[in-house]
Amino acid sequence: MIRLRLSIELDYLVLSPSCDFVFNIHVAHTSRQTVREEALTLDPCQRAEVQLDPVHGSRYMRLHAAAGPLRVSYQATVDIRHHMEDPARIGEVPVSRLPVHVLPYVYPSRYCQSDRLLRLAFAEFGHLPPGYARVQAIRDWVHRRVLFQSNSTNSTTSALDTLVERVGVCRDFAHLMIALCRALNIPARFATGIDYGADPALGPTDFHAYVEVYLGDHWYIFDPSGTAIPMGFVRFGTGRDAADAAFATIFGGVQSPPLPPRLRIEALTGTPDLTLPVHCTQALSTDDGPPVRQ
Amino acid sequence: MIRLRLSIELDYLVLSPSCDFVFNIHVAHTSRQTVREEALTLDPCQRAEVQLDPVHGSRYMRLHAAAGPLRVSYQATVDIRHHMEDPARIGEVPVSRLPVHVLPYVYPSRYCQSDRLLRLAFAEFGHLPPGYARVQAIRDWVHRRVLFQSNSTNSTTSALDTLVERVGVCRDFAHLMIALCRALNIPARFATGIDYGADPALGPTDFHAYVEVYLGDHWYIFDPSGTAIPMGFVRFGTGRDAADAAFATIFGGVQSPPLPPRLRIEALTGTPDLTLPVHCTQALSTDDGPPVRQ
Amino acid sequence: MIRLRLSIELDYLVLSPSCDFVFNIHVAHTSRQTVREEALTLDPCQRAEVQLDPVHGSRYMRLHAAAGPLRVSYQATVDIRHHMEDPARIGEVPVSRLPVHVLPYVYPSRYCQSDRLLRLAFAEFGHLPPGYARVQAIRDWVHRRVLFQSNSTNSTTSALDTLVERVGVCRDFAHLMIALCRALNIPARFATGIDYGADPALGPTDFHAYVEVYLGDHWYIFDPSGTAIPMGFVRFGTGRDAADAAFATIFGGVQSPPLPPRLRIEALTGTPDLTLPVHCTQALSTDDGPPVRQ
Amino acid sequence: MIRLRLSIELDYLVLSPSCDFVFNIHVAHTSRQTVREEALTLDPCQRAEVQLDPVHGSRYMRLHAAAGPLRVSYQATVDIRHHMEDPARIGEVPVSRLPVHVLPYVYPSRYCQSDRLLRLAFAEFGHLPPGYARVQAIRDWVHRRVLFQSNSTNSTTSALDTLVERVGVCRDFAHLMIALCRALNIPARFATGIDYGADPALGPTDFHAYVEVYLGDHWYIFDPSGTAIPMGFVRFGTGRDAADAAFATIFGGVQSPPLPPRLRIEALTGTPDLTLPVHCTQALSTDDGPPVRQ
Repeated sequence: MIRLRLSIELDYLVLSPSCDFVFNIHVAHTSRQTVREEALTLDPCQRAEVQLDPVHGSRYMRLHAAAGPLRVSYQATVDIRHHMEDPARIGEVPVSRLPVHVLPYVYPSRYCQSDRLLRLAFAEFGHLPPGYARVQAIRDWVHRRVLFQSNSTNSTTSALDTLVERVGVCRDFAHLMIALCRALNIPARFATGIDYGADPALGPTDFHAYVEVYLGDHWYIFDPSGTAIPMGFVRFGTGRDAADAAFATIFGGVQSPPLPPRLRIEALTGTPDLTLPVHCTQALSTDDGPPVRQ
Repeated sequence: MIRLRLSIELDYLVLSPSCDFVFNIHVAHTSRQTVREEALTLDPCQRAEVQLDPVHGSRYMRLHAAAGPLRVSYQATVDIRHHMEDPARIGEVPVSRLPVHVLPYVYPSRYCQSDRLLRLAFAEFGHLPPGYARVQAIRDWVHRRVLFQSNSTNSTTSALDTLVERVGVCRDFAHLMIALCRALNIPARFATGIDYGADPALGPTDFHAYVEVYLGDHWYIFDPSGTAIPMGFVRFGTGRDAADAAFATIFGGVQSPPLPPRLRIEALTGTPDLTLPVHCTQALSTDDGPPVRQ
Repeated sequence: MIRLRLSIELDYLVLSPSCDFVFNIHVAHTSRQTVREEALTLDPCQRAEVQLDPVHGSRYMRLHAAAGPLRVSYQATVDIRHHMEDPARIGEVPVSRLPVHVLPYVYPSRYCQSDRLLRLAFAEFGHLPPGYARVQAIRDWVHRRVLFQSNSTNSTTSALDTLVERVGVCRDFAHLMIALCRALNIPARFATGIDYGADPALGPTDFHAYVEVYLGDHWYIFDPSGTAIPMGFVRFGTGRDAADAAFATIFGGVQSPPLPPRLRIEALTGTPDLTLPVHCTQALSTDDGPPVRQ
Repeated sequence: MIRLRLSIELDYLVLSPSCDFVFNIHVAHTSRQTVREEALTLDPCQRAEVQLDPVHGSRYMRLHAAAGPLRVSYQATVDIRHHMEDPARIGEVPVSRLPVHVLPYVYPSRYCQSDRLLRLAFAEFGHLPPGYARVQAIRDWVHRRVLFQSNSTNSTTSALDTLVERVGVCRDFAHLMIALCRALNIPARFATGIDYGADPALGPTDFHAYVEVYLGDHWYIFDPSGTAIPMGFVRFGTGRDAADAAFATIFGGVQSPPLPPRLRIEALTGTPDLTLPVHCTQALSTDDGPPVRQ
């Protein structure tokens, strides 16, 4: 079992008379990701409404903030009991057997225009046997072709831009991998967390974007940017792409924060059942699949 | 009350060993749209699984078809008791009060890149008082600027393309209107049905795409293409945009159908409570809002 | 020496009161391409002004046509004495030694956005030794990745679209190859002619677009679509891309022609010095470089 | 007559073993723009080759620089005797009468995709009588719709982006105006100089991009960004768009300069024939049209 302690501190300066925020920085509730304790502080103090998306376990905090400075501080300790599987035993799910709630993840989205990549995806990966290894091949293809470079892209950059320009940050790697998976009818979604284990040379600890792919009834984790250690990813949110799963969506006027986000994450040990996150060859999932409904 | 009888006949020639289809041609179940009777025929005969999306009431029929010809025939009779409202009494919902399940409809999507239209939308519509009339102004703006021309666009055409090129079909009008609404934080979604009342000069009866906008707790109908009579729209599906709400999504090889889709729709009268769909100035909705869950 | 006889017949129906045309269907005058005889017929009869571009040798025929049908017929017999060279002896020209009039061909243009392909081009071809063989590698890369399919693209399709979608016609292959060359600072331009030697299975004889690359003081011919025999290419025009070098640019209203273009080209033999165009491994040029000016 | 004294100081740090530059910072030679004196200093000292484009009068300085710092300093004093004309007397030139060398300026280019704006341009400006006033209306349309904001765009931003996003710097205003003119078959080109008379609130004196439109045998100056005084524009270069007319094109590795460009420009007076540049309603040109060739 992995136990992680994380903290997030965000500063804003609200300009307009008031401003609405939707934050997605609370640790998601999944069958394998359990919050042991958490604390939220808002300065100035105000009531924050936290809503649970019952399908995905994501939690959204909505604030209506007055003009002036706003500081959001969140700390949590989380236990993750990964579903781990031998990649060789994980197959793709034929379209005819995909659950209805998974189908949207094979359709194109704002930043993942998979509809335009059918020929490319088939030419590059169509000959590989379906299964986890094929998805890993897609992940490696993206990882080898795209250069990680901070501040090289912006909020309009899409998978097609990254395919062409071959540079980006973690969200761009994720978008391109997602688009290629969907072009092969493999459901893929965007996930957010913190870059546990990232090389300090890349900068201070930051939010991270990675990929979850639906294979054999689980959403498995892939990290095409290769900048961090997937076993240490605590999931905040998931979505079709970054349009759905920003850590903060702001409706109103906000000045660039006086301070950048300050994040920390560390793995806890000390009891026999706790291990440190490490790079591993097992397939990992923190999600046993959507809850049964209907 | 409106009573409509419709029929749809679709032909395909499946090329590959087999092919998966997801059809969304069943009349949606909503609190105001009731199916009196319906019939489905598949030739060659096979079992079809029809799944209900409990949130939106859309119904998806999934087929796994063998190589060879496939004919899908569907007939239904539907009663619609519209929610009708005086436009002057309908306001916009502030972001801070939008239900969580409505929030995704203010985010950009594949064909509705609202994130790039913030300045344009604010310059053109920011000075108008919030409410139904402002959304109607957006609808009229799109309607006046875009030329309806059959076959002028394709499956990759997005709202930005339509803004630039100013030509398109009903789905393109819908995408542009949706993108402009979202740029103003007004939730808007894509809806599909049949073009009841369309001028025969535009061609034979066809599938139709239009817009639903979330205002005052209802999803109100808008038809930016102006080619048909909204009061006669029977809803099949809704989605973020055409990527989510195609009447048919095909996974596999299919030859262009030997025959085009053949659709018919007519309004029934004969009893005192039945009226014909007409153009009206009232705001119309076939959806009382998402069901209460959680 | 190659001798080719060609004919072109084009039909238009001018709709508006009048319409301006710029045709580029006359055989270009170059030091190695000599017109033995040619004839032009316009129906209805009118005066046609043919202007020579003294830099490139292209000839532009401008017509101001009245409403009604217009037929343009052109026949020519041309002799080509190719400059032929052993590819192993052909180097690239360093930017610092490129003539000023060649510099524009390393800059991006409407359909060849080389500025966005620097990383991709360097990653794929940066390790190859500069020279003709590297350009041939670019040509082969494009040829292998893109599928030739009639009517798969339109007049707005650019090199980036072709890179993403991997399908197109000869002009799309040319645009992608040009963009990749320029991304490596290798001057490349768009050339037009007739698809001598094309497989009849691809359709009737048609206009052709190919590439000329500036290497060692000559503009060498490359055909990334691989659909025809370069030794049989008679050059009509050159330009930065298809925006500059259309066979017909039309200013005004014209109905889709009642008949498609009708082209014919054949190689003549019968005297000892005349040979048939064949695929060959020699580098070919019909252009000894721009005339010395200033 | 206008007399301007200008100075430019540019710093680079060449990283790679060596680097090629093409500078276009010398005052252009035109029939109405005369260099009284000029001086160039390169540090470290080296030979610089300055080539004249005989068609446009632009001068290109090419350097092959070794690794290490490079400073380029240029000063000039220029006399401009504008061609001035009453706008009411200036008409558009019908396509059928455009000189061949002007035709390329009605075709689309990298950043000015006029081919996609035909309907929009015709809808917005097609009803206006042809002539200078219509071009002025295009200039005003762009000026009113686009917000000037430093650093809001980058080197890939095109006219379509500016049309959609409605923000940019002078080069973006110029690209959009050029694209709209060409969509109406009005030849338009990109011109570069210094922002004489710009409001210091916009930042220090900088390079400027503006538009020249071919009307009645002259290339008339338009400044859609409205940030400076056109009568004080000294022309350095012209081109199809910014791809052709950068003040510096760099082939090789260069670090962001330790110092930003330092530009100064001032108008000289003191003799009776010298006047200060002012905003005026006359049409202005520094170019009597291309030299007669052929």
